[in-house]
Amino acid sequence: MNQDAIKIVGTGLIGTSLGLALAKKGTVAQLSDSSKANLRLAIEYGAGQDKQSEPKLVVVCVPPDLSADVVIEQLDLHPDATVTDVASVKFEIQERVLAQAKDPSRYVGSHPMAGREKGGPASARADLFFARPWVITPSSNSSDAAVDLVRDLAISIGALPIVMSAKEHDRAVALVSHLPQLVASSLAARLESGEDSQLNLTGQGLRDTSRIASSDPGLWLQILSQNSSEIAPLLSALRKDIEELEEAFSNLSEAGALAKIHSLLERGNRGIGRIPGKHGGKLVGYQQLTVVIDDSPGSLASLLTFIGEIGVNIEDLKLEHSPGAPIGLVEVFVTPDSAEKLAGQLTENGWRIV
Amino acid sequence: MNQDAIKIVGTGLIGTSLGLALAKKGTVAQLSDSSKANLRLAIEYGAGQDKQSEPKLVVVCVPPDLSADVVIEQLDLHPDATVTDVASVKFEIQERVLAQAKDPSRYVGSHPMAGREKGGPASARADLFFARPWVITPSSNSSDAAVDLVRDLAISIGALPIVMSAKEHDRAVALVSHLPQLVASSLAARLESGEDSQLNLTGQGLRDTSRIASSDPGLWLQILSQNSSEIAPLLSALRKDIEELEEAFSNLSEAGALAKIHSLLERGNRGIGRIPGKHGGKLVGYQQLTVVIDDSPGSLASLLTFIGEIGVNIEDLKLEHSPGAPIGLVEVFVTPDSAEKLAGQLTENGWRIV
Repeated sequence: MNQDAIKIVGTGLIGTSLGLALAKKGTVAQLSDSSKANLRLAIEYGAGQDKQSEPKLVVVCVPPDLSADVVIEQLDLHPDATVTDVASVKFEIQERVLAQAKDPSRYVGSHPMAGREKGGPASARADLFFARPWVITPSSNSSDAAVDLVRDLAISIGALPIVMSAKEHDRAVALVSHLPQLVASSLAARLESGEDSQLNLTGQGLRDTSRIASSDPGLWLQILSQNSSEIAPLLSALRKDIEELEEAFSNLSEAGALAKIHSLLERGNRGIGRIPGKHGGKLVGYQQLTVVIDDSPGSLASLLTFIGEIGVNIEDLKLEHSPGAPIGLVEVFVTPDSAEKLAGQLTENGWRIV
Repeated sequence: MNQDAIKIVGTGLIGTSLGLALAKKGTVAQLSDSSKANLRLAIEYGAGQDKQSEPKLVVVCVPPDLSADVVIEQLDLHPDATVTDVASVKFEIQERVLAQAKDPSRYVGSHPMAGREKGGPASARADLFFARPWVITPSSNSSDAAVDLVRDLAISIGALPIVMSAKEHDRAVALVSHLPQLVASSLAARLESGEDSQLNLTGQGLRDTSRIASSDPGLWLQILSQNSSEIAPLLSALRKDIEELEEAFSNLSEAGALAKIHSLLERGNRGIGRIPGKHGGKLVGYQQLTVVIDDSPGSLASLLTFIGEIGVNIEDLKLEHSPGAPIGLVEVFVTPDSAEKLAGQLTENGWRIV
């Protein structure tokens, strides 16, 4: 896409990250934000500039509550531009745009499935969207050209475009995003009345299960309240399971109580099995190589020196200590296009890949 | 403690990891297991040997259901030894030992708060207990000498001994371990009936929230069923919150519905705030240094080469890409005793620590 062809409205976490991702590809986005401070910070970070010219594509990155209004405003303001938004719930916004915009064929909703617990331009990252799904939700009115433009944007910054209807999208995120948020918050709410001596025993299990409960209540209230019709039935099914557990634990000696608990744990196993990819792997899209090293000072360094010398950039790295001690396993994450080269060079030079 | 003074009964994940941790400190434990295959594997890993002599301390690392019986058996078998066990629920086992053992003063229960989703000797790690709480639960009958022996064991392998009553312990783990397990399993159970297109949108939030739902149902049924009286009231409180959410989402337009949802999200925030330490930090006990590097091939290697040259072993390492691109942040985790030396040497040699 040409320089200056993309306008980003709203320079919070998503807008600024998008600007940074585009900048990395050589595209300087036009930035706009009602907060002068946010806008200036985003520009200082290198996410774009504030010189305005006629854009081809407008990406509305404002809070969900404001998205529909700003989309309609931008459609009016730029009569030749395609307008998309990035809100996490799509159907309600689409309905408002279809009802109120003069030319809704230029609107196509979208939702990059990426975020962090911390918001604002200061939390932005150029690789926020890399290898993450970017859902595109055309209405029956959206033009093919508009859909293509948003798809091109997603691809250009390494995101994975997925097209589905707004309704399908909202049903999916109720399950994979909104329900987990409510569950994590409900669990964390129990900790409020815990004693310090109890909380001192917290391990990684509770930390992981409750992590997203630290999300911003104001933002999440906006998201959740736009998707209540999809969330309510999921909560109802969850409540029934919890109720059954409560009954089983309250009357453990009754026939069938243990079987009920066991069955719920097994259903949990099967549910986890439905999640695609390596469970807990945070780096979908990168390729992973596991290399064996001596578990001693310097051996990790010599591996990384070697990788650096052949010009491969390491995206992330994890250490696994082997039982005993004498060896260590290094999981190296690299972009798919450099994985084969790296594996070949490592093997040729005597490194052991497992 | 002398060579051969410690006997480990049961060479699963916990028993084998304990043997490995002791071996690292130069203590060769006596191992015993009803499964010949497990025992042999544990010995091959270097967790100890099977020559039996009179032990001073017996650590029973068998499944929770068998713990009380095996503790009583070992107290009989070794009339001068202190016996402890590592089961995750303490009160029921303690009651049985007090009622049935001839000399319960030599028994003191304990619970190393460490584990992995995968069990068995093959999953064992020498550092499993490092910097993790090891709860010791003396009964009114336990001798001081017995308590001291278990405390010494915990300290010798780098665990953090915490003394509390069996009842206090069981109430604490109901909140920080058993409830999270049931919540994660209930959430994951919802995924069973999800469609593939929905599950393809899974992000890190759902992965983390549901991760421990992949735990072994058989083992967890044993654990949970020994602690039902502490779990039931927590489940009841959770069910009430979920019920209130369900009502709010089902009647979102009614007065007070949004306030109820917002309040639950805020309570979740406050609950998370009660968890000690850096949230989500998996390496409690290690010290963290954050070093700035160029985000280019080779710069990470030269940092690690330098650290290797000064003889410091890196326990773990995380990369953070900075917004934009030109710099990267490396979080280096080292043992507390080497952190100061490392920080000094890095600064003196021109590395920037933030």
